[in-house]
Order: sequence, then structure tokens, then C-alpha cells
Amino acid sequence: MDEVAVPACPANGLLVRTLWVSVDPYLRGRITGKRSYVDPIPVGAVMESTAVGEVAASLHNDFQPGEIVTGLWGWQDYVAIEATRVRRVDSTEFPVSTAIGILGMPGMTAYFGVTELCAPKAGETVLVSAAAGAVGSAAGQIAKILGCRVVGTAGTAGKIEYVKSLGFDAVLNYHTDRPYAETLARMCPHGIDCYFENVGGELADAVFPLMNTWGRVAVCGQISQYNDRSRDIGPRPLTEILVKQLRVEGFIVSRWARRFPEGRRQMALWLKEGRLQYRETIYEGLENAPRAFIGLFHGENMGKALVRL
Amino acid sequence: MDEVAVPACPANGLLVRTLWVSVDPYLRGRITGKRSYVDPIPVGAVMESTAVGEVAASLHNDFQPGEIVTGLWGWQDYVAIEATRVRRVDSTEFPVSTAIGILGMPGMTAYFGVTELCAPKAGETVLVSAAAGAVGSAAGQIAKILGCRVVGTAGTAGKIEYVKSLGFDAVLNYHTDRPYAETLARMCPHGIDCYFENVGGELADAVFPLMNTWGRVAVCGQISQYNDRSRDIGPRPLTEILVKQLRVEGFIVSRWARRFPEGRRQMALWLKEGRLQYRETIYEGLENAPRAFIGLFHGENMGKALVRL
Repeated sequence: MDEVAVPACPANGLLVRTLWVSVDPYLRGRITGKRSYVDPIPVGAVMESTAVGEVAASLHNDFQPGEIVTGLWGWQDYVAIEATRVRRVDSTEFPVSTAIGILGMPGMTAYFGVTELCAPKAGETVLVSAAAGAVGSAAGQIAKILGCRVVGTAGTAGKIEYVKSLGFDAVLNYHTDRPYAETLARMCPHGIDCYFENVGGELADAVFPLMNTWGRVAVCGQISQYNDRSRDIGPRPLTEILVKQLRVEGFIVSRWARRFPEGRRQMALWLKEGRLQYRETIYEGLENAPRAFIGLFHGENMGKALVRL
Repeated sequence: MDEVAVPACPANGLLVRTLWVSVDPYLRGRITGKRSYVDPIPVGAVMESTAVGEVAASLHNDFQPGEIVTGLWGWQDYVAIEATRVRRVDSTEFPVSTAIGILGMPGMTAYFGVTELCAPKAGETVLVSAAAGAVGSAAGQIAKILGCRVVGTAGTAGKIEYVKSLGFDAVLNYHTDRPYAETLARMCPHGIDCYFENVGGELADAVFPLMNTWGRVAVCGQISQYNDRSRDIGPRPLTEILVKQLRVEGFIVSRWARRFPEGRRQMALWLKEGRLQYRETIYEGLENAPRAFIGLFHGENMGKALVRL
């Protein structure tokens, strides 16, 4: 924790007071010190997660004090920021925290990952791992809206109840429902057509043999591996990929950045229609952001993990 | 070996005398007794590989005795076959054996696997494993025609010389050039954009960490694993697939069957222009088909392995 003076409002820019910051599993990869798909966040720098804030001062014609904006300024109370680096949030329709949840990055990840990479047809079976999380819970509901049989995985009885309440047809408890292959075979009697993959490891090992011909695997996350890659040894999936002509694709949601307005419109519509639900796990105070972040890897959160400032 | 009477020419069909039969690695999967992407070939049935033959008798208006045809009738001297199950081969332009080689299934596998799934841009680096084989040698040459840096892998000095003679920029010897990761990093100084995958196992393990962002892996074969799946344990590739947004797709060439005429036209044109070369390893006599087949898994063949009857 660093205490510094509130910055001045920059010329032609904004001073924003943070209201919410996001903690997301992908941030783990950004603090390994290694270049991944973006440069690492150096030690001593601000954690660059998405955030929501209120304009405290504006030297830009398009923004007025009191307006709500979202951007990628991360874990800090105030930010001096260019106007082009924020997006205005309509605070009348939905709670503004949704701008970094179901209508933000996690929601877009679910929407485009399911519709573009899984691309399930009605009647197909879609498996979603980490189904109680921000992305997984949305991904499974989208697949239900598209007419699929949807099976989830989660780690506690409470989460499983929550995921079932979202309309999932079956949910595997990854602590107790071993061996995974048997449980999944029972829950997916017609095999698996799409796997929305957030977890990796032994769970993924059990999925590949159950995939159907022409199956799609959208690799969104590998949360079981972020803190210990040494255990990432298992059956190679290439023979399954070959004989079933699977398409396995990793993705970072920013590839669809230009289409986010379309994704937000559709997700907002489903929210208004009551076809899509979301939940938040809220931590209070910026000083609890590290605890909220670490909690992600112990399965603490149900739905979107957020820090309220 | 079964000796039976030559069948009669069927009504409205053909009696064909076999000239060439193909042995292909994928046939290994068809005699495991397990359903893969097609039903297994049962014990006692004819091995169903592609073949080339001469019409010995015809009761179909479109075919005359003496014409050359190709089809999937496999390891037998004569076949009574419906006319719809064969395709006429022009014997004036290329040796008829090419109908089951560079202008047949292996050629189409290379053509569509490279152009549709690898889809390399000029200047990209394409790695082709089993580069001295029927499919790999064609795949690498196609990538060269498309303007890529092409690196191959092969298992003997003679094969490496052959692959280099085809225009490959570098060739790894998988018996001597260990560790693979170091050799490949040297041979692919700008990383790997496309991997045309025929081998699997430790070679594939070394490839994933060298793949570039947006890379494509076309999984065509896994020959190192066909006879012993027990060793198919290694680093899981999912984290590499995720952070580099790789697309890994398994394929069976029959998915493009309707486009084979297009593929044959293009491959024939490149052959005539001298931009594409092929080689054959010929075994004499149907009695040697099993030996030819087994030889595939010991790296006996250079180019297409064929049996001449």
C-alpha cells in the first residue's frame, strides 16, 4: 500500500475517484514477471485491473463531474486519466458495478467465448468449468439461452446450489465427484459438444475423451495451474483432438473489443428479460484487494469478485 | 492371406484388377477394434486402404475395360465394385500411382491441412513433422510455395537430405537433435506460426512453447503414439494454447471431399510447373503389404509407401 497525493486533473483529461475495482484470475499471469500476451506488471506499479469510478474533475468537454466511467486503471483511489481511456457508464439501468462484471470484461468473455468459439447448436451438450465464477456462470446461462444441455463444475455445495439455480442441468463437485470421467459421463449421456474451459488439469484430462466428433473447446482459463505449473503434466490431448476433429482455441477477450457494444447490448437485453442473472462477492476497502485476489484461487468468490472503495 | 475365386462383374458395376494399394499410418487406428471416426475393420475383413486398378470387366456404360480407376477397396487382387465407388484416373499425365499419393488422399491431406487449417501467410514459419513422409513432404512444399520459412523433422540422414532437397529451410533429426526445444528454437528464430503435426509425443511437447501468438496447429497424425498410447503423458498444452490464443484443430481429410477436384487441380498444376516433387517407396506383391504397413511405424518409407501388385 502506497499513500500518495491525489493527482491533479490532467489537461483535456479527467480526475476519477474509484468506486469499484475488479479482481480477476488472469491478473495472476500479469504478475509473474514474464511476458505473456501483454507485458507483465512490474513490482511497485499499480495492479491494472478494470475499475469503475466517478468523475471528480474534468478538463474534457465530453465529461462532467459526477458521471460514472469505467476503464483499466486498477487498484488506486484516484486516477488522472485521458478521456479516451474511459467509457461512460449509464448508471440508470443497472448497478454500475456491472460495468466490470456481467456487462464488462467477464460478461464479454462469456458472450463471445460461447457464441464465437463454442458456437453451440440447440440440443448440444455444453460443459462449463468454474461455473460459479463470473465468467462460467454467464457462459452457462448463455448456452442455456441458446437451447443447450449445460453441465457445470464447482467446488462447494453452496456453489453447486447456486449454479443449479441458474438453470444448469447438472453440476459436478470437483472435490467429491471423483473420478471425474465417470461423473461427467453420467451427466453428459450424449457426450460433450462444447467445453468452455476455465480450470485445466485433471478436469480437462477427463473431458477430452468425452468430447464428441466436431467438438469445440474454448480455452478461457486454467485457474488450477496459475500458481503451480509443476503439476501440469497429464495425458496429451492430441490423439483425442485428431480422431474427433476437435477445434481447441485459446482466447483473450480483447480480440473482440470492437464488438463489445454488440455484446453489451445483448447481455443487457437478457438481463432485462430476466433470462440472465449474476451475483457479486464484494470485499470492502482497497486494502482488501489483495485478499480478494488471493481468494479467487481458493474458490472464495461466488460470481464476480469485486472490491468496493 | 486368403485365396478366393475372382468375383463376377456385378450388374451395373465393375470388376477391377488391382495395380497399386496404399499403406497409410491412419490404418493403424482402424484395426484396434475400437470405433474411432469410422467403424473398425473387423478381423478377417479386407484392409480398406485406397487402391488403383484397371477395369477388367464392366457392366456400366461409363467405364470400359482397360481404364484406370481408384477407390477404397483395399488389399485384394480383384474387386467387384459399384461404379459410384470408383473415380476414373487420367493415365496420360502422371503415373497412375499418384492417384493414391500426391494427387490422392495424402496430397489432399497436405493441401487442405496447410491451406485451410494452417493458413500460413508469406513470411511465417511453418513446422512440419514427419517431413519425409507422403503427407509431410507435400505439406512443407506447399508452405514453401506460399512463401513461408519451412522447418521439418525426420529420422535419418538420408531423409533429412531428401527433405532439404525439397526446399525446406532446416530439418531436425529427431534421433540426434535433442533436446528438441533447443534445436527448434535455433531453427525457428522467429518462433513457429503453424505446426503441421504428424508425430505427437515429446516432439509436440517441444513445439507448443515455441508457438507464436495466433499460431495454428493442424493435427493430422500422431504416429509416435499409434502403437503405444501408454506413453502419451506429457506437459498439458492448454496454458500455451490460452496465452497465445492458439487454434489447435484435428482433421480427417474426408471433411473436404467435395473440394478434392479443386485440390487435385492445384496439386497437378504445381507438379507440372516443377514446384512440387514427390517420391515413392514401393513394395512388390500383395503379400508384402503387411510388411510395408509395419514399416511405416519404423520410418522405413521415404515419401509415399505403396504396394505394387
